[in-house]
Amino acid sequence: MSPLPNRSGARPANHTAELIFTGDELLRGDVVNTNQTYLGERLLNLGLFPTHALCVADDLSAIVSAIKDSLARLPMVLVLSGGLGPTQDDLTREAAAEALGRPLEFHPELLDQIRERFASRGLVMSEVNRKQALLPRGATALPFRGTAPGFWLEEDPTLVVALPGVPWELKEMWEKSVEPLLEDRSPGLERTRVRRIRTFGLGESVIADLLSELDWRGPRVTIGTRAALDGVTVILRAKGGQEAEQQLDVLERRVVELLGERVFSLGSETLPEVAGSLLRAQRRKVAVAESCTGGLVGKRFTDVPGSSEYFLGGVISYDNRVKTEILGVPPKLLAAKGAVSKEVAAAMAEGVARLLGADCALSTTGIAGPEGGSEEKPVGLVYVGCVVAGAIEVERLRLFGDREQIRERAAYSAIDLLRRRLQKQSGPRP
Amino acid sequence: MSPLPNRSGARPANHTAELIFTGDELLRGDVVNTNQTYLGERLLNLGLFPTHALCVADDLSAIVSAIKDSLARLPMVLVLSGGLGPTQDDLTREAAAEALGRPLEFHPELLDQIRERFASRGLVMSEVNRKQALLPRGATALPFRGTAPGFWLEEDPTLVVALPGVPWELKEMWEKSVEPLLEDRSPGLERTRVRRIRTFGLGESVIADLLSELDWRGPRVTIGTRAALDGVTVILRAKGGQEAEQQLDVLERRVVELLGERVFSLGSETLPEVAGSLLRAQRRKVAVAESCTGGLVGKRFTDVPGSSEYFLGGVISYDNRVKTEILGVPPKLLAAKGAVSKEVAAAMAEGVARLLGADCALSTTGIAGPEGGSEEKPVGLVYVGCVVAGAIEVERLRLFGDREQIRERAAYSAIDLLRRRLQKQSGPRP
Repeated sequence: MSPLPNRSGARPANHTAELIFTGDELLRGDVVNTNQTYLGERLLNLGLFPTHALCVADDLSAIVSAIKDSLARLPMVLVLSGGLGPTQDDLTREAAAEALGRPLEFHPELLDQIRERFASRGLVMSEVNRKQALLPRGATALPFRGTAPGFWLEEDPTLVVALPGVPWELKEMWEKSVEPLLEDRSPGLERTRVRRIRTFGLGESVIADLLSELDWRGPRVTIGTRAALDGVTVILRAKGGQEAEQQLDVLERRVVELLGERVFSLGSETLPEVAGSLLRAQRRKVAVAESCTGGLVGKRFTDVPGSSEYFLGGVISYDNRVKTEILGVPPKLLAAKGAVSKEVAAAMAEGVARLLGADCALSTTGIAGPEGGSEEKPVGLVYVGCVVAGAIEVERLRLFGDREQIRERAAYSAIDLLRRRLQKQSGPRP
Repeated sequence: MSPLPNRSGARPANHTAELIFTGDELLRGDVVNTNQTYLGERLLNLGLFPTHALCVADDLSAIVSAIKDSLARLPMVLVLSGGLGPTQDDLTREAAAEALGRPLEFHPELLDQIRERFASRGLVMSEVNRKQALLPRGATALPFRGTAPGFWLEEDPTLVVALPGVPWELKEMWEKSVEPLLEDRSPGLERTRVRRIRTFGLGESVIADLLSELDWRGPRVTIGTRAALDGVTVILRAKGGQEAEQQLDVLERRVVELLGERVFSLGSETLPEVAGSLLRAQRRKVAVAESCTGGLVGKRFTDVPGSSEYFLGGVISYDNRVKTEILGVPPKLLAAKGAVSKEVAAAMAEGVARLLGADCALSTTGIAGPEGGSEEKPVGLVYVGCVVAGAIEVERLRLFGDREQIRERAAYSAIDLLRRRLQKQSGPRP
């Protein structure tokens, strides 16, 4: 075996990472694998790109094969997660030993630590926990605060790390022990620099088309997009130092120019946070009148801690009587135009602004489905109204997706309409 | 190639399933893979056990190898998810074609459908979408409502299915097209019979302790629990025929007896659905007055299609002035007791019932955090008020978690209080 990269000073063949999660509960759909999300992001920030993340059943030969397959691809890191407990289903130690051809060895000092962990919680260690003091030959135990010790070992060119499956135990062990280990032994690692440009109101394919116009030929920067109900995020990534930052600066400016007012944030600020900051800066207060969203616009505003500074509240006018009696929508207008109409959206927003004494107001009225649509007013037709300082504006939307998605998109569309109008008041973005 | 199981009548070698998810966003930690959870559960309910679930980078040769490795293990089903979009990163069609040695063929009728999908949303199809009309030879397109068609093909003994990565598109395609396909061609499947007993108001460990008292020794039934913000579900699973059903009947009855009024549903009905059914059956209407939940109780009620039959609407009284001026909470009471108090919760619920003319009403007021807590009124302290036919009841809750979790738990707690009170009116559960 050739020496490890950090010893020889040679760069490893690649900067990839692989993840293997054991546990039938992951495959049965009993739990969502948040460990994968966590590790993916942490690895990337270290400059390591995860290429494979596998969940495999609690079956010894399946885990052994998975480890062998992974090592054959020569990743720089292989992270195993789960299967370190004391039960018969906990097979990671055995599988690693078999896949690597290294017998399990008993570590009495590790057993003492496990016994102590139990004692510190007022419990007596059970005999079954003895097996947690077994490690494949050459492995080093990782300090633990939970019940399961992890371990690491070198299988050139791969660093193999075994972590518990319990999310907080995994996170703590990763941050306290594994990241220092990786940074220590991989001085050649180049961090990935990331820029996020968040947009609302354009589809992912439209944005992809627009971005292709950029005809970006700069080296080392990759451009990606991620679509969610609260918009599409353009993600720029580059490896390296100052030069990479400069490249990202240039490209970021060009993307922002290209997408114009659709860009609501550079970074992690959400749409309700951006709208909230504008309201706060302009010393305005907002109220909502919600029909098809049923309270979701209010919920989104109040997701933000401190939103009581600018969010007054509102009226959920699901029943038409609430629209007329509380919000003051004229019954004749409602009868003539129908609840899902431009005119009623306007009257709702104006009504709640008046009722709550707010200088900004939003309203939503639409057909969220799955029933209730017609040829004239199909499922997905939504009107959002927006009052800013007495001036009303209504947008007509054709939203797609299921009931949940139509409602989420409607709520974000309303907040984005307010955001764009307030941003015009503030003048152009810096 | 030997004939397919359903044609020859022979049982397939095993009842396993494998999943391959493509997408750098999954590996980078940008999104949580909820499709895996969903498919895991649906497969298990069909009697298929998922053994491998792999997320692989958007790299053609990596996806091709992953498909080949999976097929070599002869699963009964291989589900591919993601990579069916129009961009250069969407490689599933190409990878399946290469792994299976089947050239891609252009399907003009599929392109027409894609063009129609765009037109129905008032959009013009872009040229890049042409590649979505390519399928590996022998594949059949799966009907789609989103933007990406899926497909299936036979690669004896495995049924290969390719689905979009967008969760709602995947779910719809799975339920409408893939499950019927699987049931149709796999008469030998021994279904896992599942019973779900949904509870609210008890922690998972309390329930586990209670269940251990059952001392269940019957064969073949496994008992599990799954915790979420809307309560803990007890899951009973058994394989087999009539005998398994009988065992499940007995055990289900015992669990329901043990957990009493905490059980709100046997099956998939959600808490808002159960509360809604009770309201409908008792011909009652409900209104909400929300402070700390900011609209979320209304949102949860209106998640249910048809909720306009019993949900009138409500007032989001985030600002104290809305509590006094709109809901009629006496300013003196507010000053004396504070907004987060039993008395104000009661006045809010009574106020909104009066304002909207509702015979049921719910209110929430509390400290969602992260700021705003004190020793006397810590973060997580929430009062929920509930009026049923003029009678008020207030519950004091100490909720844990972050802002989002406290608000979700508060909203469900309010709805559950109404559910329990209405259930008492209806008499004991059948």
